[in-house]
This record gives sequence, C-alpha cells and structure tokens, in this order.
Amino acid sequence: MSTSLELIASQRAFGGWHKRYRHRSDATGTEMTFAIYLPPQTAHGTKVPVLYWLSGLTCTDENFSTKAGAQRVAAEQGLALVMPDTSPRGDDVADDAAYDLGQGASFYVNATQAPWRSHYRMYDYVVEELPALIEAHFPVTAVRAISGHSMGGHGALMVALRNPGRYRSISAFSPIVNPSAVPWGQKAFNHYLGDDRTAWAAYDSCQLMESAGEMLPMLIDQGEQDSFLPEQLQPHILQEVAARRDWPLTLRMQPGYDHSYYFVASFIEDHLRFHAAYLA
Amino acid sequence: MSTSLELIASQRAFGGWHKRYRHRSDATGTEMTFAIYLPPQTAHGTKVPVLYWLSGLTCTDENFSTKAGAQRVAAEQGLALVMPDTSPRGDDVADDAAYDLGQGASFYVNATQAPWRSHYRMYDYVVEELPALIEAHFPVTAVRAISGHSMGGHGALMVALRNPGRYRSISAFSPIVNPSAVPWGQKAFNHYLGDDRTAWAAYDSCQLMESAGEMLPMLIDQGEQDSFLPEQLQPHILQEVAARRDWPLTLRMQPGYDHSYYFVASFIEDHLRFHAAYLA
Repeated sequence: MSTSLELIASQRAFGGWHKRYRHRSDATGTEMTFAIYLPPQTAHGTKVPVLYWLSGLTCTDENFSTKAGAQRVAAEQGLALVMPDTSPRGDDVADDAAYDLGQGASFYVNATQAPWRSHYRMYDYVVEELPALIEAHFPVTAVRAISGHSMGGHGALMVALRNPGRYRSISAFSPIVNPSAVPWGQKAFNHYLGDDRTAWAAYDSCQLMESAGEMLPMLIDQGEQDSFLPEQLQPHILQEVAARRDWPLTLRMQPGYDHSYYFVASFIEDHLRFHAAYLA
Repeated sequence: MSTSLELIASQRAFGGWHKRYRHRSDATGTEMTFAIYLPPQTAHGTKVPVLYWLSGLTCTDENFSTKAGAQRVAAEQGLALVMPDTSPRGDDVADDAAYDLGQGASFYVNATQAPWRSHYRMYDYVVEELPALIEAHFPVTAVRAISGHSMGGHGALMVALRNPGRYRSISAFSPIVNPSAVPWGQKAFNHYLGDDRTAWAAYDSCQLMESAGEMLPMLIDQGEQDSFLPEQLQPHILQEVAARRDWPLTLRMQPGYDHSYYFVASFIEDHLRFHAAYLA
C-alpha cells in the first residue's frame, strides 16, 4: 500500500487519540478526508478491532467525531473508530444545490451515470480502499463492525448485507432501509444509478436482506419523534423482512427522540457495547 | 417574575430534555438565549440542583450542549445544566471584528466604558437574572454549582469567588485565572472597564482568591498541550495563591490534552461527579 496519509489534526481524547487524515483515493479519484479514534489500548502496540461509522446527509467526518461521545465508550471497550467523509468533494467534483444530492450526499453507491460516475464511487471506497488503508497504517486488526446514521445507516446496512464476511455485526440509527421506495433514495438513485430499478436493488437493504446468505446480528434505534420517520425511514419494512427470515434484528423505537445527534449520543453506548460483544 | 420565555427547541437526550429558550433580559437590555438540560428525575416534578456552565471565546450556548457529552452524566446524577450565551448579541449591540472582544467575548463583566456599557452586563445576568429566571420557571432548587471553559472558566471562578453563598462548588477547564496579567484579559478589561486597574481587581480570580472569605471546593483541569497555556492561562498562579491560603483547590495537569472540546468531553464526567458530591 503506497498511499501516503497526510495528518491534518491529532487530539488527545479519553486517554486515546482522535486524528484526521487526508489522502489521495484511487476509488474516487479525489482527495478524501477521514478521522480515526485510536483507543488507549493501542499505545503499547496492541491491535484493536474497528467500528466503521457512516454519517448522514450534509455531514463530514466531524459531526459524529464531535457530537456523539463515542470515543468514551470506544476507549473503555478497546475499539478503534473510523469516520469517513460522506462523499468526494472539490471544485471538480459534480455537485447539486440541494442538500440531498451531490457533495455530502453520496448514498455510498458506485454511480454509473454522468456527471456523477467520474468520482462518486463511495461503495468501493468504504468497502475496499478505506479498510485496506486503515489496516496497513494503524494498530488495528481486520475484525470489523459497521454503523451509521440516516443516509449512513442505509450505507452501513447495505454494505454489510452485501459483504457479510467483512463484518461481525451491523447497527444503525434512523436508517433509510428501503431507499428504492422513498423520496430521498429515489432521487439519489435516479441521479447516480439511472432509471433502471434493477440497478437499485443492489443498494436497497430491504431487497438485500431478502436474499442475503449469512445473517449478521443487527441493532437499529429509531426515534419516534423523528420527522423523517413516516416518509423516508420506515424501519418496520425491514423488520417485516427480518421477521420472515428469522433474522437476528433488534429494532428499538425510542419514544420522544428525534433525528439529531442528541439521539445518537443518547444510545451510542448501547451500540458500541453491542458491537464489542461480537468483536471480542 | 413576569419575564416570558420563548421555547426555540426541545430535544430528548439521555432520558431527559435539552431545551433552548430566548427571553428579554433586563440586565443586558437585549434578547438572550440559553439552553437548559432537565434530567429524567424532573419528569415527575422532582426538583434538582443546577450546574451553570459558562463557555469560552466565540461560543454560544450550543458548543457545550452538543460537544461535551455532559447530559449523560447530568442524567445519571440528577443535575440540571444551564448554558447561557457568552454575550449579548444583535445589530444594535457593540461589536468588534476580533474574536476576543465584543459579541461572543463578554468576559462576564459589567462594562463601564462606552460603547460597551449599554449592553455588556453579563455579570449581573449570570449572577442574578438568569438564576432567578431558571428557579422561577423550571423544576430546580436554589442549590447551584458553576463551571466553565477558558473565558468561561474565568467567569465561573470569578463569579463564585465573589458570591460564595450562591454556589456550593466551583470547577473550570483551562481557565483564564489572572486576566489582569495576560493579553486576552488586559485587552478586554481595557475596553470594558477602562485603564484604571483597580476596577479590574473585582474580576480577577487570583486577586479575588487572596481576599475571599468562604473557601468553596474547586477543581481545575488543564491540558499540558494547550497552546494558550504559557501566555494566557497559567493556572499555577492561582495554585500559588491557593497554597498560601490552604484553599481546597485540585489542579490537574492533563498530559497531551489541548484546549478543545475533546479535552472538556474527556473530563466532564469527573467535574459533574465532583459537583454532585456537594450538591446532594
């Protein structure tokens, strides 16, 4: 692995180190930014498993890093956290004025349509390139889990359903579980993948779960006061598929909680403990 | 208390409620914004003690609210958190282009100099008006503690040293302990209080501690890699005063930590537990 990493920032947190890096990505053909939290256990060379976190619309690597409080639990459990950006970025990267398309809104697919296809290859980035980079440069094992929020919850479920051998466990907060059937997903998939809906199935967690082989343990939290719940999220659709297949899915509806990082922060400890049990 | 509070936002967090309010302030003659976290214990009418948090330069009520993770511990300990803004704001409020003067940089004084004196009365706001408002409108007791970061650490120490009867305990992260002797404080005090240094003494924690009567328990955390430590902060000066007076001050120098909210988040649990022991 010859990719060089440029350290942007390094800050002590909860006895470990929160670091941001920039690097040239083969997958996207752009520079990409990610953050990594290395828990105190790595100080003496101990390799630790990694939880990948995919963020939602409009986010960068910094939203989860600064607002979720996950480093505290990662330090306690001896997990590394890896937080990629939500899309390629730059003046030469296609974009759209809307918050739900273009930069900050990749939906973690490999785009096949112009003008998106030249850089929007976040599926390859998240599944292949980033873990290879992380495992080459940092004191981590190849034992992985994945989680995310909203669009990133979609990303986490979809990526792990397609690559069960690469992850031990899956979780999500307020995920878009059935993007082919809801406005956010339909808009993005039309732009990135074209109007042939057979191409959409490879990125739709409800459809992927129907035919998935290995059934990884899955935890989903959803706020009942989330304004996006009725139209965009609808986790009960995934729950119905899981029930038919006897899939080990725990869906928790949380009364009073909304779509914000106050919600994520309130339950991130449960998610990290859930993953830690399978990563040990 | 006839002041009316306008609810701006209410979000569930850690089983309690994080709320933001706007209100007309008699002290500043402007609208002011604050946030309050009400822990789950208040759901059934139980009154809880309050920790006031004063933020640093450039902050609003939102920095600590979103980044410190304090609500988790407040929920566990049954404390309310109150987070005021760091200054009056608005088009008719004096300001300066620099980050360390004017809006977002009140230094929690009552300004005596033009153009600041018409609205910059944050000392009165924090000591008198805000607690009266909180205690009239929310399920809290009049049992209080105070903490803060950087300029807000200065504010917390100074306010409690001048009003020991109003607080049970004091803490700070990276506080400006001796503003009369360092560039940030000298600039602000010159503008807000004029060049007569005898007026500065009432807002300088090192000078206040020399003559303070009641010795409240005090906890200070300071990152050793904080770039502001050698010139602006220098907590050892306060520690020397405390040693002469046998003051119950615990100053913890934290290796590797900087001035950021990653530092605050890493140790906020210790501070809330410290305060909770005196608030019970």
